[in-house]
Amino acid sequence: MVADRDGPVTLSSDFGWPYPAAMRGVIAARTDARLLDVSHAFPRGDVRTAAFWLREILPYFPPATHLAVVDPGVGTDRAVLVARAGEHALVAPDNGLVRPVARRLGDDPTFFVLTDYEAASATFHGRDVFAPLAATIHERGIDALVADGTLERTVDPVDLRLPTADVSADRAHGEVIVVDNFGNAITSIPGTFVREEMGATVAVNDERVRVERSYAQVAAGERLVTIGSHGNVELAENDGRGSEAFDVRVGDAVRIAR
Amino acid sequence: MVADRDGPVTLSSDFGWPYPAAMRGVIAARTDARLLDVSHAFPRGDVRTAAFWLREILPYFPPATHLAVVDPGVGTDRAVLVARAGEHALVAPDNGLVRPVARRLGDDPTFFVLTDYEAASATFHGRDVFAPLAATIHERGIDALVADGTLERTVDPVDLRLPTADVSADRAHGEVIVVDNFGNAITSIPGTFVREEMGATVAVNDERVRVERSYAQVAAGERLVTIGSHGNVELAENDGRGSEAFDVRVGDAVRIAR
Amino acid sequence: MVADRDGPVTLSSDFGWPYPAAMRGVIAARTDARLLDVSHAFPRGDVRTAAFWLREILPYFPPATHLAVVDPGVGTDRAVLVARAGEHALVAPDNGLVRPVARRLGDDPTFFVLTDYEAASATFHGRDVFAPLAATIHERGIDALVADGTLERTVDPVDLRLPTADVSADRAHGEVIVVDNFGNAITSIPGTFVREEMGATVAVNDERVRVERSYAQVAAGERLVTIGSHGNVELAENDGRGSEAFDVRVGDAVRIAR
Repeated sequence: MVADRDGPVTLSSDFGWPYPAAMRGVIAARTDARLLDVSHAFPRGDVRTAAFWLREILPYFPPATHLAVVDPGVGTDRAVLVARAGEHALVAPDNGLVRPVARRLGDDPTFFVLTDYEAASATFHGRDVFAPLAATIHERGIDALVADGTLERTVDPVDLRLPTADVSADRAHGEVIVVDNFGNAITSIPGTFVREEMGATVAVNDERVRVERSYAQVAAGERLVTIGSHGNVELAENDGRGSEAFDVRVGDAVRIAR
Repeated sequence: MVADRDGPVTLSSDFGWPYPAAMRGVIAARTDARLLDVSHAFPRGDVRTAAFWLREILPYFPPATHLAVVDPGVGTDRAVLVARAGEHALVAPDNGLVRPVARRLGDDPTFFVLTDYEAASATFHGRDVFAPLAATIHERGIDALVADGTLERTVDPVDLRLPTADVSADRAHGEVIVVDNFGNAITSIPGTFVREEMGATVAVNDERVRVERSYAQVAAGERLVTIGSHGNVELAENDGRGSEAFDVRVGDAVRIAR
Repeated sequence: MVADRDGPVTLSSDFGWPYPAAMRGVIAARTDARLLDVSHAFPRGDVRTAAFWLREILPYFPPATHLAVVDPGVGTDRAVLVARAGEHALVAPDNGLVRPVARRLGDDPTFFVLTDYEAASATFHGRDVFAPLAATIHERGIDALVADGTLERTVDPVDLRLPTADVSADRAHGEVIVVDNFGNAITSIPGTFVREEMGATVAVNDERVRVERSYAQVAAGERLVTIGSHGNVELAENDGRGSEAFDVRVGDAVRIAR
């Protein structure tokens, strides 16, 4: 079953404050579900970063209805997307935001679009379109909304693929996917590439850096390569900002040689 | 009925962190109600900005007990206010904070003050006075507290009126009420004044600017006039900060000519 | 009874965003308990500041399972600590973080460590070790986990003592424990030392400053000495940052003479 009525509704956005509260109110007015925030601090309009975090975090939740709104195209004709992925339901703008997490949550996610909607505002579909839809899906399920014509199947939702890496026997070539709020630079290189090098060094963009299981295994202020909680190679600094220590930004190339 | 025992309790303040948690604890110790944050990021001591957001956001919630604390006069003799507005109950310092939302929630809100209280601290009435009172109102209702003398009617709570606009056939004269966290400058001019101008331009403080339904209808970095989700004219910049692009701050005059 | 199944689970960390959501998901997948955030804005890796706030705030909650993760030693061999204190259960790294609050919550707290664990990651034990443990304790209670060997008693958890003050008849010598997000400098000097001086002045590090019950009793921008909501002497500025006005930082000595 999807969108279990006993499960929670999660909320994610780039709204900061106070706009998420309007979505909370809209949902609370329509369902008694537990409301659980994922984050409303996603960088404004940055669909890719939010897509990465949703992919990493939502799988830890029980079957739920997940509302996610990072929507730089609000008020244009972008579609309103619903996904069924495993036992989860996802509600989001059709801009790729929930494609990576949908693949992660289920082998064969299916997608739907809202056939028609009228929004009270052109600038806050989170409150006027997405939140009421998420509440309705939580209460009634996707199938009921397909049956009554509110939703229809789509086979070509906007895709978004997060960067991967080229990995050979002794070299991996990837890029920085996101920098987290601690300054850790999370790369697209799988952690398996450095797993056997714990305590040794690898060359990161031609500089030798130690590989360690955790931050505290090097001195404060020292750089390290580690495997982040997402399973990818992370460029970090104990008690500091790895992105600055390695001088890398999102999208920058990262080459690691064993 | 007011303060429905099945409804949620909402929390709003300018406390940032970690003080809101003490209010959450106090309320959770007294009621099983769903606790829903509105925001704790309201600008410190800025009653007017918080009053605007409460007016815009609380009406989206189901009947609830709303606790709101922006209280620059904490520890002085300002009264502790309770309002009954429609099916909602409001608990706040008597400094005007919840007057605009009370008018919005009900045609004929009624007001009460706490007849007497002793606070464990003189600096944190949110925790020591307002939160316990909100929990009690949620559990017992306003009438029971009037009956036992805890509350008494008041006919002259401190008022606060948010700015309005002078609107004629071809000119509107208002001001910036608040700047939101995206930098959008929300004016006191009703959106109806520009509704017929979509796609055309209006003069904002003597400069021609396009009116669009949503941010993405102009290029990134371009200014626009739009109707915000609150229904008022908003001065915005797609993917930027409208307040900077228009060089306006809260309280600045805004003149729009069609 | 400890870890009442009807009580809430609280969450505290220095994770900022979005990592707390992974802990929320893990817990929500294991229990229907109310999840209540304390704060995730504790300064990164600052065990002492977080320990202070936990001590001040958690006692306002009803009997609960409290998860607290400020864990600069993640991935090292620091133990995973559980405390039973009054009717509360605490789950935290064994670095002193919950020792002050454990003493505050119960006269004779008892401590346990996780006998063995395997974490999916070496960098995010909040998600992989602490959150599942907190959910399990909430559902099953500490005793069941001792009985099955998951937990064992410890008599020497890492201690942490927050600073106290030397107080004589007319002088008190302490230090700044934390600076809150309003800039108030919270000292280790008990508020009782200045209680009789309300409206008069005391010498703070040799400068005369007025003692007042609340911020608003001096003009905006003026310094004051007050008794904070935690019961300690606070160095404050009405509508400003006391730490800057008094030029003090955490750890700085504060001498007050009546």
